[in-house]
Amino acid sequence: MAKEPKQLDELFHDTLKDIYYAEKKILSALPKMAKAAHNDDLRAAFEKHKTETEGQIDRLEQVFQLIEQKPQGKKCAAIEGILEEGQEIIKEYKGSPALDAGMLAAAQAVEHYEISRYGTLRAWAEELGLEDAAKLLEETLKEEEATDEALTELAETAVNSAAEHAEAA
Amino acid sequence: MAKEPKQLDELFHDTLKDIYYAEKKILSALPKMAKAAHNDDLRAAFEKHKTETEGQIDRLEQVFQLIEQKPQGKKCAAIEGILEEGQEIIKEYKGSPALDAGMLAAAQAVEHYEISRYGTLRAWAEELGLEDAAKLLEETLKEEEATDEALTELAETAVNSAAEHAEAA
Repeated sequence: MAKEPKQLDELFHDTLKDIYYAEKKILSALPKMAKAAHNDDLRAAFEKHKTETEGQIDRLEQVFQLIEQKPQGKKCAAIEGILEEGQEIIKEYKGSPALDAGMLAAAQAVEHYEISRYGTLRAWAEELGLEDAAKLLEETLKEEEATDEALTELAETAVNSAAEHAEAA
Repeated sequence: MAKEPKQLDELFHDTLKDIYYAEKKILSALPKMAKAAHNDDLRAAFEKHKTETEGQIDRLEQVFQLIEQKPQGKKCAAIEGILEEGQEIIKEYKGSPALDAGMLAAAQAVEHYEISRYGTLRAWAEELGLEDAAKLLEETLKEEEATDEALTELAETAVNSAAEHAEAA
């Protein structure tokens, strides 16, 4: 008997597992990034985002519950690659005034991955009539967008110019 | 003699190589995505983005020229991971009404990676006083943002509901 092709509800569930895995990876990467940061505001931003990430994982677990599934991760090649680039920056720019600028950029790549995933999951939840799930995903989406904006402001007001001025010194 | 730590201009150059590699990978992935798409508008969007990507690669080569470097790619683990997830969708959802929704989501993950990279590169170009480079990077950034918005509209107006209605049929 031929297997039925997978449907939108399964795509939603698969993608939920993908971002659940990703959030847990991000949670374990953030303390390393905070530790490596020179700029106090950048370090504080990473620490704040760690607390937010814990709340986002909690919301994902609620979404799993709403679709009557056990919270479970599925290896996400995208986040592995994105975080690997962040690790390379920490290694290659150790001791450089450009380190913070590079880590901030890596963090924004992470945020953008999450923004695209939560935007997609929210739209699919609405399509599937999962209104409570859509609300939870929307909450996290807004948080990720706010984090990305805060990082952009930090780059523009402090981190990039510190990297450049130290270079000229 | 201790090696000098790498500076912001080197971080700019390294990240330029990263996105140059990524754009070339995207260029070769897009025809496969267009071929797999069921929805005519989605296929047209992938084909249009292929043409845009060629122009974006051309702009990157101009930026390399502005900093007096040879255009050269550097393996980008992030785009490898993001595109790998897109390939998995094509394989796992073949024959499913949810295939287009999954590919569209994968394409938006690609767009968001590019948006974060071009946003960062434009900011660094400005910081480094590379005004012509900043303008070229800004042009591409606007294009990527427009592509992402067009994909969101396509998801909301056609692709997601087709996936869901076919499921109910």
